[in-house]
Amino acid sequence: MVVDTFATDKARQVPRARASPRTPRGGPISTPPALPPLRFGVNYTPRRGWFHSWYDFDAGHAREDLAQIAGLGLDHVRVFHLWPLLQPNRTLVRTAAVDQLAHLVDLAAEAGLDVLVDGVQGHLSSFDFYPEWTRGGHHRNVFTDPEAIEAQAVLLRTLGRALAGRPNLIGLQLGNELDNLVEGNPVTAAEVDHYLATLLAAAAEGLGAAGGLVTHSAYDAAWYGDDHPFTPEACARKGDLTTVHPWVFSANCARRYGPRSPQVHHLAEYGTELATAYAEDPARPVWVQETGAPEPHIPAADAPEFARATLLNAAGCTNLWGVTWWCSHDVDRGLADYPELEYTLGLFDSAGRAKPIAGALADTVAALRSGPRPAPPRETALVLDCTPGTRSVSGPGGAYFEAWMRLRTEGARPAVVLAERAGDGEYLAERGITELVRLP
Amino acid sequence: MVVDTFATDKARQVPRARASPRTPRGGPISTPPALPPLRFGVNYTPRRGWFHSWYDFDAGHAREDLAQIAGLGLDHVRVFHLWPLLQPNRTLVRTAAVDQLAHLVDLAAEAGLDVLVDGVQGHLSSFDFYPEWTRGGHHRNVFTDPEAIEAQAVLLRTLGRALAGRPNLIGLQLGNELDNLVEGNPVTAAEVDHYLATLLAAAAEGLGAAGGLVTHSAYDAAWYGDDHPFTPEACARKGDLTTVHPWVFSANCARRYGPRSPQVHHLAEYGTELATAYAEDPARPVWVQETGAPEPHIPAADAPEFARATLLNAAGCTNLWGVTWWCSHDVDRGLADYPELEYTLGLFDSAGRAKPIAGALADTVAALRSGPRPAPPRETALVLDCTPGTRSVSGPGGAYFEAWMRLRTEGARPAVVLAERAGDGEYLAERGITELVRLP
Repeated sequence: MVVDTFATDKARQVPRARASPRTPRGGPISTPPALPPLRFGVNYTPRRGWFHSWYDFDAGHAREDLAQIAGLGLDHVRVFHLWPLLQPNRTLVRTAAVDQLAHLVDLAAEAGLDVLVDGVQGHLSSFDFYPEWTRGGHHRNVFTDPEAIEAQAVLLRTLGRALAGRPNLIGLQLGNELDNLVEGNPVTAAEVDHYLATLLAAAAEGLGAAGGLVTHSAYDAAWYGDDHPFTPEACARKGDLTTVHPWVFSANCARRYGPRSPQVHHLAEYGTELATAYAEDPARPVWVQETGAPEPHIPAADAPEFARATLLNAAGCTNLWGVTWWCSHDVDRGLADYPELEYTLGLFDSAGRAKPIAGALADTVAALRSGPRPAPPRETALVLDCTPGTRSVSGPGGAYFEAWMRLRTEGARPAVVLAERAGDGEYLAERGITELVRLP
Repeated sequence: MVVDTFATDKARQVPRARASPRTPRGGPISTPPALPPLRFGVNYTPRRGWFHSWYDFDAGHAREDLAQIAGLGLDHVRVFHLWPLLQPNRTLVRTAAVDQLAHLVDLAAEAGLDVLVDGVQGHLSSFDFYPEWTRGGHHRNVFTDPEAIEAQAVLLRTLGRALAGRPNLIGLQLGNELDNLVEGNPVTAAEVDHYLATLLAAAAEGLGAAGGLVTHSAYDAAWYGDDHPFTPEACARKGDLTTVHPWVFSANCARRYGPRSPQVHHLAEYGTELATAYAEDPARPVWVQETGAPEPHIPAADAPEFARATLLNAAGCTNLWGVTWWCSHDVDRGLADYPELEYTLGLFDSAGRAKPIAGALADTVAALRSGPRPAPPRETALVLDCTPGTRSVSGPGGAYFEAWMRLRTEGARPAVVLAERAGDGEYLAERGITELVRLP
């Protein structure tokens, strides 16, 4: 391993003085900083009929699933409706579908669960749910067509208004991994920025004074995909916090390093630190909103330990908001055509039985809740010097990723700092960083 | 006009003796043949929410629409569910959606209406309704992928079983204008034949001993589109009868000849005779299953006369089964993105008010029902000599089409005979044809 420390390079050396204490969001300055409790939840995949269950929404079935989830000691769910059902015509948002979604949020409240609602799906487990008014002879680029953007804004405002004021509502997200739609909807980074800004404003307007988080999400290509139009900056600077979906299959991470490798066990932690580096606000929260144990990338026997390690390691990130596991229930094998891994991602199987990973997750959550956050500031940072066209260096297989993991396994707890901020002493001090390490 | 009669060409002359009487389907031979009464109906487009109303099926709304339709003296409706709602996953046919469809058939019965059910939609008014398992990364060619064909077969068998035995069920059609899906699903004529044969067998198997018509339908490209993989032969030889959708916008018919032209007023009649020519059974019924008065092709002021002429002229075809108008109700202008003409095709407007064309249609139907069928055999036939690659000669703008229309407006009532049958005296006699006319 070749890392180049700058401890003796005066021009680059960072004063070793303690950084000024971070300011908790909205709270008073205190020493040491009082970190908010972590949130732990699950992405809710209905056991009976998967998301097709929205066609025949059954409150009893939802109640049963949510009770199982709450039984693990989790505090929230992330929920997904289907775009074609919500907005089958560009100018028609179905009241009945919006009401179902609100009903589900209320059922979660009954179970003691908070809820993040994803608006525009969009992409779910390899299937693309687009309304017919965006397809075929009616094709519209969902990111750039002004009327398509306005329609999505109307949908988000409508959802926001319908959900606003529910005490268990965490917030409204634009939709699941919108960057999965890029292939059929070519878009530039500037157009993505405009799209995200417009829809985030619409969601916030819908929620109104009652508030709630307004967020967006992307799959790993935004972080690791050279020239991908969704950028790390858009992820880390738009919306009320940064969401990351550090999947072990991205860039073949688990295949490359092995299912029990440090690279896999520290992947969520790394994704959180990487996201922190791209934020303008050093204290911006990062939500590990999707992580999971897909077979065969993570063999079933390794899944409990993977869950445990993922949570414990991520909990060591000062900015971590929480972790939301993917997913609650296995896809039933009676439903065809899913990628093999989607059938095995649940904490519960398709008959509703808890799998070993569910126990591991519940135990780890309980342990993390019982003590203080193991998240002191990271004094050493590895400098990331890449462009939108070379960002794959920071993904699995990339030189930066591997250097960071080497530092980590050698006992350091490295932060990530962008090269453009490496000379900004005030910024580094705010993050508590006292030592910079660079790749040769 | 140059037509070449063969009355003096002994080699080609057809005996002028009367043809043997035709055999009614399943009935005894009689002289003169007893033609079954014509059927008149409408393609049912729900007034509130168009076909999106399936998401929120409301029996009261359907009952109201059906009562309006029955009030015009019509005897049947053609109904359409949406494929993604019926079969959201390849291996999941939603019982609730099938039950809704059966419920609609029963509501039609209450209103005194018979019903043809179209199974796989597919294409409706410019929108393509495909389930997600056929699209995006899951793309399957709906005509050639063996599992996609089998899934459609399962759907049709399921629909057939659910509907079988309802006394007001006319039958089960594969789906609306399946050839609209060709662009995204390239297919050869042989593959279309296999697809249609497989699905027609599945529909018939579903209906079982209770029976009912089993049919398929195509838009005009099958008849007029050079090299289109859906052929006139497939239309005229597969299924229990031939359906035609002779639209005045096809090949710019109304724009080319004018909205009050003979070509427009005789278009449905012509389409019926053309279909008869391609049938192997000279008595095979032909159903004018879609015709309508789309603005601006047919200005609103001309619509009543267009409806009257279309029905009266088509009624002069011996093999006509009936006419089903497109459509019952205008699309509400609150729904976006339809081609302009789709907003004005209804007999009723989107507020439920009968339009002048509704009265014209009702009066013409009543008149046709009050007297004998004006459909003596056509003694003169114009010979059609074309290949799959030159079939556009028989469409608007084509030499054959124009010659037929010239004969028609000069007072003849020409039939259509394929060149390959023009030497088959027995066949011609069976059709009552005593004179052949050929293009030079």
